[in-house]
Amino acid sequence: MYTEKVMDHFQHPRNMGEIENASGVGTVGNAKCGDIMRIYLDIDDDQIIRDVKFKTFGCGAAVATSSMATELVKGKSIQEAMAITNKAVMEALDGLPPVKVHCSLLAEEAIHAALWDYAEKH
Amino acid sequence: MYTEKVMDHFQHPRNMGEIENASGVGTVGNAKCGDIMRIYLDIDDDQIIRDVKFKTFGCGAAVATSSMATELVKGKSIQEAMAITNKAVMEALDGLPPVKVHCSLLAEEAIHAALWDYAEKH
Ligand code: FES
Repeated sequence: MYTEKVMDHFQHPRNMGEIENASGVGTVGNAKCGDIMRIYLDIDDDQIIRDVKFKTFGCGAAVATSSMATELVKGKSIQEAMAITNKAVMEALDGLPPVKVHCSLLAEEAIHAALWDYAEKH
Repeated sequence: MYTEKVMDHFQHPRNMGEIENASGVGTVGNAKCGDIMRIYLDIDDDQIIRDVKFKTFGCGAAVATSSMATELVKGKSIQEAMAITNKAVMEALDGLPPVKVHCSLLAEEAIHAALWDYAEKH
């Protein structure tokens, strides 16, 4: 049912945790399943995402997509990060079952919310 | 949204893992969200559940209810374990949001499936 990459990122999530005094924080909820996700971004003066962490109450698919999404945005500019879609994240994981696609939206939405939070503060 | 007990069992799940050569193993899927859960039981000759472990791809609510359910069945007889409902597990956690009740069914169903697996083998 799940690809090797999904299982790997589920069992060994990258960048799980919090960032104190983050440059931007995004919290989103999933209306379909009631799960929540929070992404923390640390953005430097050159507008490069130096660090990123996530926390979620979501399922294995939410954990795996967040883990992959944080890897994809780390080291990127704000513009590059904005362009990363949940489709790109799912492709990097070699796919997700259709019933789990809505879970993957959490990571994309939380990253956008965190970038928005950063933009509002700057 | 989540009680202190739910957050505690989500962040520090009890009895997560596998049992090699378990007396009974139950695997169930959740049609609503596509998540899966597996429970391993170690049952002794007096039909007492000596050890129990779980693994799940499910969300935080599934993790918390499984963690609590495994604590409730540990040390119990097969008959006592059969009588533990997801309602009892949710009460032990001081409740769950309605959207998450279907997640709590996974643990109950997986325990029943594991007891059934044990019964079939003996
Ligand atoms: S949403 Fe699937 S187990 Fe909770």
